[in-house]
Amino acid sequence: MSHLQQVGHQVQVSDLYAMNWKATLDSRDFPARQPGRFDASLDSAVAFKDDTQNADIKAEQQKLLWADTVIFQFPLWWFSMPAIMKGWFDRVYAHGFAYGVGEFSDSRWGDRYGEGVMTGKRAMLLVTTGGWDSHYSARGINGPIDDLLFPIQHGCLFYPGFSVLPPLVLYRVQKMQPSAFTEACQQLAQRLDTLATTTPIPFRRQNFGDYQIPAMTLRDDILPEQGGFAVHVQES
Amino acid sequence: MSHLQQVGHQVQVSDLYAMNWKATLDSRDFPARQPGRFDASLDSAVAFKDDTQNADIKAEQQKLLWADTVIFQFPLWWFSMPAIMKGWFDRVYAHGFAYGVGEFSDSRWGDRYGEGVMTGKRAMLLVTTGGWDSHYSARGINGPIDDLLFPIQHGCLFYPGFSVLPPLVLYRVQKMQPSAFTEACQQLAQRLDTLATTTPIPFRRQNFGDYQIPAMTLRDDILPEQGGFAVHVQES
Repeated sequence: MSHLQQVGHQVQVSDLYAMNWKATLDSRDFPARQPGRFDASLDSAVAFKDDTQNADIKAEQQKLLWADTVIFQFPLWWFSMPAIMKGWFDRVYAHGFAYGVGEFSDSRWGDRYGEGVMTGKRAMLLVTTGGWDSHYSARGINGPIDDLLFPIQHGCLFYPGFSVLPPLVLYRVQKMQPSAFTEACQQLAQRLDTLATTTPIPFRRQNFGDYQIPAMTLRDDILPEQGGFAVHVQES
Repeated sequence: MSHLQQVGHQVQVSDLYAMNWKATLDSRDFPARQPGRFDASLDSAVAFKDDTQNADIKAEQQKLLWADTVIFQFPLWWFSMPAIMKGWFDRVYAHGFAYGVGEFSDSRWGDRYGEGVMTGKRAMLLVTTGGWDSHYSARGINGPIDDLLFPIQHGCLFYPGFSVLPPLVLYRVQKMQPSAFTEACQQLAQRLDTLATTTPIPFRRQNFGDYQIPAMTLRDDILPEQGGFAVHVQES
């Protein structure tokens, strides 16, 4: 944060543990909801539209709208985010805010995957792991780190419209020697200094011809016979 | 549950919302910890060894040890588990219980990925989605469901030793018609009736020759030139 401020950025921080962030999305998030069965999506939609969401959710949405770049920092726990951060997405990403936005028709399938409220904003993951980097390599037993992060980078960030910068992943951090720590700090500073100029991951946008609607499958003539996460990144 | 009991199984249920399950792993989970910086892994290891974990964590560990089969049911939120269930893994999977177990040497890298405390037990995911099944197909925009579930099935279930049965995924559930619901119930009943006989996903075990230690990369002569999640499943 001090590095970003030194070079002239304004910074807001959401330290979820320090904030004692409520991780679980539940009916208490929508104090004006009608009695009856809790419906996470429907109750969220009504509360967002009527401006009756809990204050902590609304404050985080305002921070997102304020930012031009968002950095998500977390340790990889069980190959994903810690629960408290997952609960940030579950709760802050309201229906009508981060999903269920835009027109659903024969030619468009909502403002998502490259369009949405975060369009024009950049996001980057800053991830630490206990495991070695080779364990997360293309043939490493944990699975390639890019694939492990796909549900977050593509599913949580690109989905509502963020341009997603390549992540900075620091491995084996609990055994990090001072020299490696210094090097990691330099890496991070370099990434912070180039947030505005780094080329985002070229995920394919949904409503611009690459996908069949409403099946939302990649057009047959693009990378035929291939599947998996990688086909959703444009070839260079 | 009633179906399982009718055919003679004993069943314990952990309904995380009904239990008001604490989702966030933090220092309060280890009431006997030494003051100082919280270390999720180290504090967990000490508390597990000294039997000073919080009672809710210990109770879930006991249920796991008791069970021969565990079914994890959840709606897919943002391409993963809801935070409350992620927090179940973060907290119940203690160091010394689900990871950090066994010998680390030139010939073994802990009891994990096919070995561990859950060896001999079966696990299955029961997942519901809002999106259509084609969106989760091999070329669907969300990514293939098997790849989205890999961090859970391989990283959370196979890791501590579970045999992982193919998941039952029910799509588009909020728009499900009565006939489709009846069909889904029949599918589920069929899966419950065959829990003991269904062939598990043939994930490669770590310490049985397929991986180089300590790099933990797949041996060069196995599926050469290939990478990604799929190489960790044995060819049939």
